[in-house]
Amino acid sequence: MKPINIMLNGMPGNVASIIAGHIAADDRFNLIPFSMTGAEIEAITHNIKGLDFKLLKPDEIENSVLKIIKEFPDMIAVDFTHPTAVNKNGEFYVKFNIPFVMGTTGGDRQALSKTVLSSSISAVIAPNMAKQIVGFQAMMEYAAETFPDLFKGYTLQIKESHQKGKADTSGTAKAMVRYYNKLGIPFAEDDIIMERDPEIQKREWHIPEEHLTGHAWHTYTLTSPNSTAKFEFSHNINGRDIYAQGTIDAALFLHKKINEEINLQVKGKKGTVYTMIDVLRGL
Amino acid sequence: MKPINIMLNGMPGNVASIIAGHIAADDRFNLIPFSMTGAEIEAITHNIKGLDFKLLKPDEIENSVLKIIKEFPDMIAVDFTHPTAVNKNGEFYVKFNIPFVMGTTGGDRQALSKTVLSSSISAVIAPNMAKQIVGFQAMMEYAAETFPDLFKGYTLQIKESHQKGKADTSGTAKAMVRYYNKLGIPFAEDDIIMERDPEIQKREWHIPEEHLTGHAWHTYTLTSPNSTAKFEFSHNINGRDIYAQGTIDAALFLHKKINEEINLQVKGKKGTVYTMIDVLRGL
Repeated sequence: MKPINIMLNGMPGNVASIIAGHIAADDRFNLIPFSMTGAEIEAITHNIKGLDFKLLKPDEIENSVLKIIKEFPDMIAVDFTHPTAVNKNGEFYVKFNIPFVMGTTGGDRQALSKTVLSSSISAVIAPNMAKQIVGFQAMMEYAAETFPDLFKGYTLQIKESHQKGKADTSGTAKAMVRYYNKLGIPFAEDDIIMERDPEIQKREWHIPEEHLTGHAWHTYTLTSPNSTAKFEFSHNINGRDIYAQGTIDAALFLHKKINEEINLQVKGKKGTVYTMIDVLRGL
Repeated sequence: MKPINIMLNGMPGNVASIIAGHIAADDRFNLIPFSMTGAEIEAITHNIKGLDFKLLKPDEIENSVLKIIKEFPDMIAVDFTHPTAVNKNGEFYVKFNIPFVMGTTGGDRQALSKTVLSSSISAVIAPNMAKQIVGFQAMMEYAAETFPDLFKGYTLQIKESHQKGKADTSGTAKAMVRYYNKLGIPFAEDDIIMERDPEIQKREWHIPEEHLTGHAWHTYTLTSPNSTAKFEFSHNINGRDIYAQGTIDAALFLHKKINEEINLQVKGKKGTVYTMIDVLRGL
């Protein structure tokens, strides 16, 4: 298979740079030496593992994109930029027929979907690239829909730990709350216990020192009325590797879908929005 | 609502006696003062919380059952007897039109189903009465069917602890193994780590002293190839309360289904086999 051209946008950002390292090391991809960045970024290049990336500011990109597309045909964009850039970038990809994987959270998600659906390109739009966490969320959703009140009478504790500096409560934990509600347990998002203190994370949670600056640990504990039954689910993620793996799978999935669409030669075809659930199913 | 007559079979056995205590304390039921027991049992009565139960040996039961049915109409049997009695008892219930909840494991399960399906009575047949564990198993089955290979590359550890004296590996843990296999992890039933030593259970597992003689603790740990992601699921059950709750729900469910069937007045109706999944769905 010819390597898939990938334009990874969002460098020199931390997450984008880590994911770039994984994609660059993967033979199935050719990571092109350009990356869209924010207007406020002063650097004009960014280096990862010996590879130089030219950073393209918003005012430069439209002038250079046609040349880039010509040099790197059938390119897929992978977006780990900034919430404020989500919709603008979506419109840009559509305008230049670049299918994309949107790993950036925030922005107007409905408008983003609409942009794709009314275009002729397809995209994977996923607020969480960690496949196994998305799979676990789907399990919880299935239980909530299929067995309402399964845990009626139980008490719930949700604890999450993230690196110091993350101000808001975990979005994953908040999304889980409504599944537990359907399973019969009254619980508010405010009841989630947050930990941001590196000392406590090290001493009580036993989070490895090197991951104090980047981790996402979650524990959900369900206890029966008389405390004789305890169910506990946890997903503890250190660093960003899991997101890089999911991004690679999403890009491969999108590439496969695009080829299927080309083979079907659908005329006047509209863009399709895929989610990580689609990627997991591998349909 | 008139209390539902329940004949709880399997006394003076430990599990049956505990469940009898729960049913006796529940206004929705009338626990009748008879219990089918094994030929080897010498006692002729059994007392639970001030209630006396006449123990009926296999050779007595056919002679007394018609009188019991007359005295306690629309009776439902709840069976926590012995694997060797499962099929014989199933045939007995069918012969005398007694709908039943089969909480006893073992025996020829296929033959048991057939007995019910070819009769005019219905039954809940469940190898595990713990609703929340059955629900969690259904979640795992859903994931295994929907997202095969979701955990490909991960390593799995399964640990289970039960009271000293339980010789075989946990059936629940063994059932889980095939879901994890479908999720992409090679793992054999023999890889399950069993703990039966009360000293270690107390010291390392922190199992409460009073439950060392009756508990079922399970932990499934999934670790990503580079150890940066860890998923852990556990269900820790002390004593038998969770099974009593599930048995009560199964009996209520069966009673509801029987009334629906009566209202439908289906002629020549065949017996239906329900599972705990049906009870959970509450269909």
